[in-house]
Amino acid sequence: RMPRSSHRRVGLVADEAGFWHESRADFGPSVEPGVQLETPEARRRLLHLIERLGLRRRMTPLEPLALAEADLARVHTADYLAAFRAQSAGTGGELGDFAGFGHGSYEVAVRSAGGVAAAVRAVLDGELDRAYALVRPPGHHAEPDRARGYCLLANIPIALELARARQGLGRVAIVDWDVHHGNGAQRIYWDDPDVLAISLHQDRLYPVESGAVEERGGDAALGATLNIPLPAGSGEGAYLAAFDRVVAPALRAFQPELLVVACGYDAAFLDPSSQMALTSATFGDLTRRMIELAEALCGGRLVIAQEGGYSPLYTPICGAAVVAALLEAEAETELHDPYGRHLHTPEQNLLPHQLEAIERAGAAAGTAPPTHH
Amino acid sequence: RMPRSSHRRVGLVADEAGFWHESRADFGPSVEPGVQLETPEARRRLLHLIERLGLRRRMTPLEPLALAEADLARVHTADYLAAFRAQSAGTGGELGDFAGFGHGSYEVAVRSAGGVAAAVRAVLDGELDRAYALVRPPGHHAEPDRARGYCLLANIPIALELARARQGLGRVAIVDWDVHHGNGAQRIYWDDPDVLAISLHQDRLYPVESGAVEERGGDAALGATLNIPLPAGSGEGAYLAAFDRVVAPALRAFQPELLVVACGYDAAFLDPSSQMALTSATFGDLTRRMIELAEALCGGRLVIAQEGGYSPLYTPICGAAVVAALLEAEAETELHDPYGRHLHTPEQNLLPHQLEAIERAGAAAGTAPPTHH
Amino acid sequence: RMPRSSHRRVGLVADEAGFWHESRADFGPSVEPGVQLETPEARRRLLHLIERLGLRRRMTPLEPLALAEADLARVHTADYLAAFRAQSAGTGGELGDFAGFGHGSYEVAVRSAGGVAAAVRAVLDGELDRAYALVRPPGHHAEPDRARGYCLLANIPIALELARARQGLGRVAIVDWDVHHGNGAQRIYWDDPDVLAISLHQDRLYPVESGAVEERGGDAALGATLNIPLPAGSGEGAYLAAFDRVVAPALRAFQPELLVVACGYDAAFLDPSSQMALTSATFGDLTRRMIELAEALCGGRLVIAQEGGYSPLYTPICGAAVVAALLEAEAETELHDPYGRHLHTPEQNLLPHQLEAIERAGAAAGTAPPTHH
Amino acid sequence: RMPRSSHRRVGLVADEAGFWHESRADFGPSVEPGVQLETPEARRRLLHLIERLGLRRRMTPLEPLALAEADLARVHTADYLAAFRAQSAGTGGELGDFAGFGHGSYEVAVRSAGGVAAAVRAVLDGELDRAYALVRPPGHHAEPDRARGYCLLANIPIALELARARQGLGRVAIVDWDVHHGNGAQRIYWDDPDVLAISLHQDRLYPVESGAVEERGGDAALGATLNIPLPAGSGEGAYLAAFDRVVAPALRAFQPELLVVACGYDAAFLDPSSQMALTSATFGDLTRRMIELAEALCGGRLVIAQEGGYSPLYTPICGAAVVAALLEAEAETELHDPYGRHLHTPEQNLLPHQLEAIERAGAAAGTAPPTHH
Ligand SMILES: [Zn+2]
Ligand SMILES: [Zn+2]
Ligand SMILES: [Zn+2]
Ligand SMILES: [Zn+2]
Repeated sequence: RMPRSSHRRVGLVADEAGFWHESRADFGPSVEPGVQLETPEARRRLLHLIERLGLRRRMTPLEPLALAEADLARVHTADYLAAFRAQSAGTGGELGDFAGFGHGSYEVAVRSAGGVAAAVRAVLDGELDRAYALVRPPGHHAEPDRARGYCLLANIPIALELARARQGLGRVAIVDWDVHHGNGAQRIYWDDPDVLAISLHQDRLYPVESGAVEERGGDAALGATLNIPLPAGSGEGAYLAAFDRVVAPALRAFQPELLVVACGYDAAFLDPSSQMALTSATFGDLTRRMIELAEALCGGRLVIAQEGGYSPLYTPICGAAVVAALLEAEAETELHDPYGRHLHTPEQNLLPHQLEAIERAGAAAGTAPPTHH
Repeated sequence: RMPRSSHRRVGLVADEAGFWHESRADFGPSVEPGVQLETPEARRRLLHLIERLGLRRRMTPLEPLALAEADLARVHTADYLAAFRAQSAGTGGELGDFAGFGHGSYEVAVRSAGGVAAAVRAVLDGELDRAYALVRPPGHHAEPDRARGYCLLANIPIALELARARQGLGRVAIVDWDVHHGNGAQRIYWDDPDVLAISLHQDRLYPVESGAVEERGGDAALGATLNIPLPAGSGEGAYLAAFDRVVAPALRAFQPELLVVACGYDAAFLDPSSQMALTSATFGDLTRRMIELAEALCGGRLVIAQEGGYSPLYTPICGAAVVAALLEAEAETELHDPYGRHLHTPEQNLLPHQLEAIERAGAAAGTAPPTHH
Repeated sequence: RMPRSSHRRVGLVADEAGFWHESRADFGPSVEPGVQLETPEARRRLLHLIERLGLRRRMTPLEPLALAEADLARVHTADYLAAFRAQSAGTGGELGDFAGFGHGSYEVAVRSAGGVAAAVRAVLDGELDRAYALVRPPGHHAEPDRARGYCLLANIPIALELARARQGLGRVAIVDWDVHHGNGAQRIYWDDPDVLAISLHQDRLYPVESGAVEERGGDAALGATLNIPLPAGSGEGAYLAAFDRVVAPALRAFQPELLVVACGYDAAFLDPSSQMALTSATFGDLTRRMIELAEALCGGRLVIAQEGGYSPLYTPICGAAVVAALLEAEAETELHDPYGRHLHTPEQNLLPHQLEAIERAGAAAGTAPPTHH
Repeated sequence: RMPRSSHRRVGLVADEAGFWHESRADFGPSVEPGVQLETPEARRRLLHLIERLGLRRRMTPLEPLALAEADLARVHTADYLAAFRAQSAGTGGELGDFAGFGHGSYEVAVRSAGGVAAAVRAVLDGELDRAYALVRPPGHHAEPDRARGYCLLANIPIALELARARQGLGRVAIVDWDVHHGNGAQRIYWDDPDVLAISLHQDRLYPVESGAVEERGGDAALGATLNIPLPAGSGEGAYLAAFDRVVAPALRAFQPELLVVACGYDAAFLDPSSQMALTSATFGDLTRRMIELAEALCGGRLVIAQEGGYSPLYTPICGAAVVAALLEAEAETELHDPYGRHLHTPEQNLLPHQLEAIERAGAAAGTAPPTHH
């Protein structure tokens, strides 16, 4: 455990515009209108909670960078950007599955990417040690030429490409612990050996067709894509084992200059979109592990960019645990998790079939030898 | 598959009062007010959907029976009933964990139990073939002397005890597929060899301390309690296997005069309260299996009493599948399930560790020999 | 007061599809998304309340008539219907001010008009004495060639034109007590001497440009349009005086064969969209006056078609008062109005400037001589 | 119009805790649960809007003062405080009409009063020129010995009494333009000639029994209470006339050292709780008038404390107009009011019966001679 410091400068992006974005997913004609999975509520309430706990005032507010279309075009196709801009100027539209948007969403999505870019820039500049980008819409499903799963622009890749162009950023690693597969970064960086894209996710949840251990990157970048699909029902045991046995060794081997987390909270116990069982304690643990790795590998440079998380009740508690960890303020933070006591239920242990899945991923990554049963 | 009949008379209890009940669960000081897990919304929307699909008009409306306190006292202690009545006459209260209630909830809870009683009576009388009690509050966690988990009165036991007293009901079987353990019936019927209480549930989810395979009933009723705890992450494969290998044989062996389902929808894919992955198709399948068993064993007498289910988006679709099955109207019902395609994701298959859990339950029940690996 | 009868047959249209319609009004870029004025909630809760009060079971359910496009074309232009149908088949649209709609709204709007048509037909046929059409979307602002103010099709005119074509309906009077001007019927029947279109409304509230006392109908139908604009702040005193001094004499003079009320609840005390102060008592009083007039003038034939009403808290109470009056069940109905005590606040009295406005309307209508001050 | 200055330092209190307070009003058994008039939503959305418009970053954040019980006891009785504290430590309670509260509301109410106290202190100290206290719960109905109308503690009097005790504050004037009567300050300062308590309100709206022009203060303080009850339906014309003819002369005659506004937004056009018709433009006008008077009379010292306002759609726009005026930033603020165009509807003019009411108030106040008609 690293030495305590009360001098960590932690940035926070929390752009109001993001909460005014209207997302829509079409669940078909048997779902009565009036209920959506993705709303601003979970993120708003996370912000409320860190305010209430006194954490927000200890963070440095960051404004989104104002991105030019050229900044987006490093990642997205011109056709996609033009179509998105045009539909957004009208009454909204949909340019991919589960990814409807309203009037003005283009500008908001650009601010969201700009929020991650601001966090990356401040940390690379050394202005701040770490930063949390509480942005909306999320980005990790967005592909160069289409929107998917509430994601309209690829926030993290846009931010990283800007940093490569402007700040000379070299090797960077993305750890995506959103419960859904990080298909965006995988596709965008498929052939790029300088970006390690790791995704921990529920096996074949969404997108169903991607995220297998066999997907390891293009020939020029073999191993720079690393998928760890976990079985439905996984909890603390599986996540920490996957991190310690596969993620951490891969990061150490890669030697990045910056660590970025695609931080979804949808693997949490109460999240409706998945079958995972994490509590806020595990999100805190994962964050502390990332901090330690950043300290060890890249001068502590760590950016957390928020992705999914659909429980207005529980996402805030998980997010507050991450923020408290970034501030190294866990001890003095009065965070009450109603699910703390479930830590010792069966799904919090590492089960044999979960270990097998982790070992398969580790073997593919070359980080861990398969064990024999 | 049984022959089609268009002459099934299916009853529906949908008492408006139930939707006016205010439930409250205390998730502690880190949860901002304004969000609750249990609200009338999921049940209201289920009712809306079966109305919209044209199913409701094919059902016979049933009014709750007016229960006397003596009817409740067959199951609950006098002290508990007095305390509940008193707090309900004031501003509400809480008489167990996760089970707060408001002013007037006593009368509503009595109507909820009366709704299940009406369904049981009509089916036993032969007025109707089957009945669905869309009641609120639920009942399967309520114990003789305390409320638990949103349940205030033990709806099903109260209904069954009334039927035993008035209609000479003999042996009856309860199948509880709510994702949480059916602790109420287990405790109430622990020593009663004439009530087979089967519970399929996520292992140690809630209540954490009960529902193990070893809990098999008191000495006088050994085997009349049957628990099938399933691992987090279970889907269609596990549920159908558990049903076919353990539940169905147990029911056949028991030879009940009536089948009752404690029908929660919280093992569904989108439900926030669990880690299970059922789709509406599986709820339809389970219902059809119950119908077949009822036809084979007890003249078709089948009552479905609604318990949990916390997804305003998905509970209605699962419930509509159950209702369509009761009406044998699946073919002509235009029910669109956005999660149908997930049927072939990994969690829909029967996995070895799930099979093991099922076999342990079967062995305890004496319905299936353990297999060796 | 007419003699009590327990044999009134009162119909109820309450089509589920209407509650699935998505309306949208654009309040501009300074209004954060997530709040709308017009939602299904106020109507749903009205339905819940009459169910809870035991009123609904005393009514005869009516299904909407299945209308053909020709039935709509008696009132609307072919161009408007084609545009509406096309946008509704896509992702929705907006064909007038404050009148956005979603996918599938065309079919729902046709059912809404069909609901009013069913009520009119049943009453004209003598199947029922009176009927209440709890429809959505509303209709009284819809004009032949455009949607306005949440109204997509002119429900009442469509129903009346069908009855004229099929049932030989002759003279009919519409009393519109929605707080906004009944511009639709006025425009549609401007030159038709056989339809008396009376509108009581808050002066120049919406549409701002219509509803003045000087608007009295075309040359061929002078006097068949009758506007009674009331000053902001009017309550019971002004409404009952306007009814007794202007509306009732006009109806008596006109001798209709059917009375139809365009029944908005947005002149109510708690309604956000207006500055009027009616309580449920006044809605009951107005309904009883309409019943008496219907008995006196046209064999009791009375249809109430719901229009606006935007208070989820108070619209239901006002609507229940109307339904109780239709059923002549006020005495045995336990309706608790939190605003009953406000009946004696200043705005419940008839004030001089209100009386002046009423007299101006009466003078224009020829029903009351102006008084001199 | 005063000269523009870009150097105004304007404070903002926006304490997160206030939004976590649960208020409850009992509207009786005919109101289905799930809808409340007073929720955090209108205030939250006001905060969101001023953030979105770029106004918030131009304000100086203020933390609530930590008040001791002795600070409350200058205004409230010991019995009331003890009862409130005790019920708040349990599951909440109700200590007056329409004033229910939940667990922990005592601490939140103390912070709310402390928020107004912080604003008063900063302005009196000269740290800031003006301040806006966006607090919750409101305070202007709270009386020494009871809660009323969502108000639990008398925020403004508590703040003023603290300033008198600590900062030697002398004469102070309160202008209460919440649409309901400012009964709290009236009762608390009835005999105090050094506090001028002016209330503009809808005549006999709430509390029904107080707020008449004849209520002018106790013998020792005759004229220091000044009520201007306006007729239902009043708009810009009436409010500006009342301000210019009665409020402004009274303030000039009184020569206060500090101006405080009890700033409700419930006289606004879309507010459900009243029959008034103000638009955001009028709230801006009233604020500018208060600024001018403060500049002229008391060195510009002006505190705005938020009271009622129940339209989640429109309260934010009215509040943003007030904040923009405080910042003298109207010209560069892109505030779009959907009701701007209603400024020329009839209720925006000064009508004769409104003028009469204003003149009666002016005559009672001695600020304006009655005119004869
Ligand atoms: Zn996700
Ligand atoms: Zn359950
Ligand atoms: Zn209206
Ligand atoms: Zn107020």
